[in-house]
Amino acid sequence: VARHLGRSRGITVDPDEVLVTRGTAQALDLVARTLLRPGDPVAMESPAYPDAVLAFRTARARPVGVPVDAEGLVVDRLPPRAALVYCTPSHQAPVGPVLSLPRRVALLEWARRTGAWIVEDDYDTEYRWARLTLDPLKSLDADGRVLYLGSVSKTLSPRLRVGWIVAPPPLLAAVVAVKQVTDPFAERPVQRALARFIDEGRLALHVRRTAAVYGARRAVVLRCVAAELPAFAVVPGEAGLHVTVSAPADPDRLDALTRASAAAGVAVRSVRQSAVVLDGYAHDGLVLGFGGIEEAAIPAAVAAVAREWSG
Amino acid sequence: VARHLGRSRGITVDPDEVLVTRGTAQALDLVARTLLRPGDPVAMESPAYPDAVLAFRTARARPVGVPVDAEGLVVDRLPPRAALVYCTPSHQAPVGPVLSLPRRVALLEWARRTGAWIVEDDYDTEYRWARLTLDPLKSLDADGRVLYLGSVSKTLSPRLRVGWIVAPPPLLAAVVAVKQVTDPFAERPVQRALARFIDEGRLALHVRRTAAVYGARRAVVLRCVAAELPAFAVVPGEAGLHVTVSAPADPDRLDALTRASAAAGVAVRSVRQSAVVLDGYAHDGLVLGFGGIEEAAIPAAVAAVAREWSG
Repeated sequence: VARHLGRSRGITVDPDEVLVTRGTAQALDLVARTLLRPGDPVAMESPAYPDAVLAFRTARARPVGVPVDAEGLVVDRLPPRAALVYCTPSHQAPVGPVLSLPRRVALLEWARRTGAWIVEDDYDTEYRWARLTLDPLKSLDADGRVLYLGSVSKTLSPRLRVGWIVAPPPLLAAVVAVKQVTDPFAERPVQRALARFIDEGRLALHVRRTAAVYGARRAVVLRCVAAELPAFAVVPGEAGLHVTVSAPADPDRLDALTRASAAAGVAVRSVRQSAVVLDGYAHDGLVLGFGGIEEAAIPAAVAAVAREWSG
Repeated sequence: VARHLGRSRGITVDPDEVLVTRGTAQALDLVARTLLRPGDPVAMESPAYPDAVLAFRTARARPVGVPVDAEGLVVDRLPPRAALVYCTPSHQAPVGPVLSLPRRVALLEWARRTGAWIVEDDYDTEYRWARLTLDPLKSLDADGRVLYLGSVSKTLSPRLRVGWIVAPPPLLAAVVAVKQVTDPFAERPVQRALARFIDEGRLALHVRRTAAVYGARRAVVLRCVAAELPAFAVVPGEAGLHVTVSAPADPDRLDALTRASAAAGVAVRSVRQSAVVLDGYAHDGLVLGFGGIEEAAIPAAVAAVAREWSG
């Protein structure tokens, strides 16, 4: 995993900074149980990734929404006393903006000042679409405040249940102690197979090959949206397997649209259906995933959504 | 699993009463997180199974020790306000007595009266050594107060990480909801293989065959202890892969004995080393496991322990 991160995400980690988990759900649960006490405020991007909200609420912590704009998480709006902040700097889930460099610097400075932890969920950034993209926040983490999460759920399969937490060793030891309580043995055969897959360069090759496929799909999505859904504006995003297109907030109309699209055979969700809105988020939009649709099927799918929208 | 329980333990369960977990550690953790709130008192046999103590403490609950005598858990000494009681009726871990039938009836009545849950950890009773043994407490559970835990850790391997929780469906649904947070996917290949292994009768056959091996080892252990360790009294137990022999409490001397035995190549632990003593438990003893030693090696091992004891 350390080698995979070095190759794919440009961060250098030692193996003793890595805990392999059964996917990001377990990673979030372990982090929440290790770092949070009942009632602790947890700062989260709003709209927020529902599984993260669930993990923090299950630990009896209290998610507090922080708005997101075109530069990502609005760091100035972070609550002063959060125990940790959960964020998706590479590709805000689900809206899409990249956390800008000035915001990254400010976020790390905020964590240093307040003593809060930063949980960076880098869930889909093996697939990056811009020529120049920022390395993970973790790469700037001089003070050891960042816990970095990743997985093979996007690159290989969510059914493999392999993810990882990168954190400073003393903190990681505390996370490992909680994992011992609930899940004391590693999945050796799967981990060995994956390690070999990484060491032989086959994961990197697989990502390159699938990136060509996904990149072509993404280009078709963007072209079709521009042509057929002029009411929606593409949120500039640089990574991952979905494009978010924003629209004026009208949840009823978007709900009707997603229902009608589903009836027409196109699975598409609105931002509000995909996320937990924790503060007064005024917008909405559609999350257009292209991980599971063939390139050739995309124009008809977008056309079907456009038909339902205008009809 | 339902079929395995019917065959091996004489309890009839519906598949919708069973949740398959990654072993008993996860089962305990899920049960603790589902049923306990911070500060809740949890009644536990003392000496207690350390992993259960750990699971309950990790949920910020408060283990309270209840003494164990020759009839098992002393039900009269249960605290009036426990949220749940954790117990090992078939073979108290680690001391060994079987919970007597009158105590079982009293325990169920206590749970009915107080509204507490009973967690029955039936960790090793696929291997039973008496001609007539009691079925699990769960088989008497008319009021749906018992959560029954089991695993393949003793019959097949702890590395398989397969265990189960049997509970009334509404309660089980709450446990499943917590599992979704931390570990949302089942280990399909392993579960399918195990289901086939059970359905084809091969697990039952395997238990019968290994029971012959373990039973022979147990007989040798009992014979050698009687001959060579007269200071120790065998605790009458009817199940499982260890025999506990009691001795006057003298932790220093038993610690020295186990250290010297380890140096002589015999891994043996005292009750206090194997368990968490939660109340004023006045005894001690040795836990003689025979799951991992060949029958032919047992006499020399017991002789080595006896030598260290008298030397």
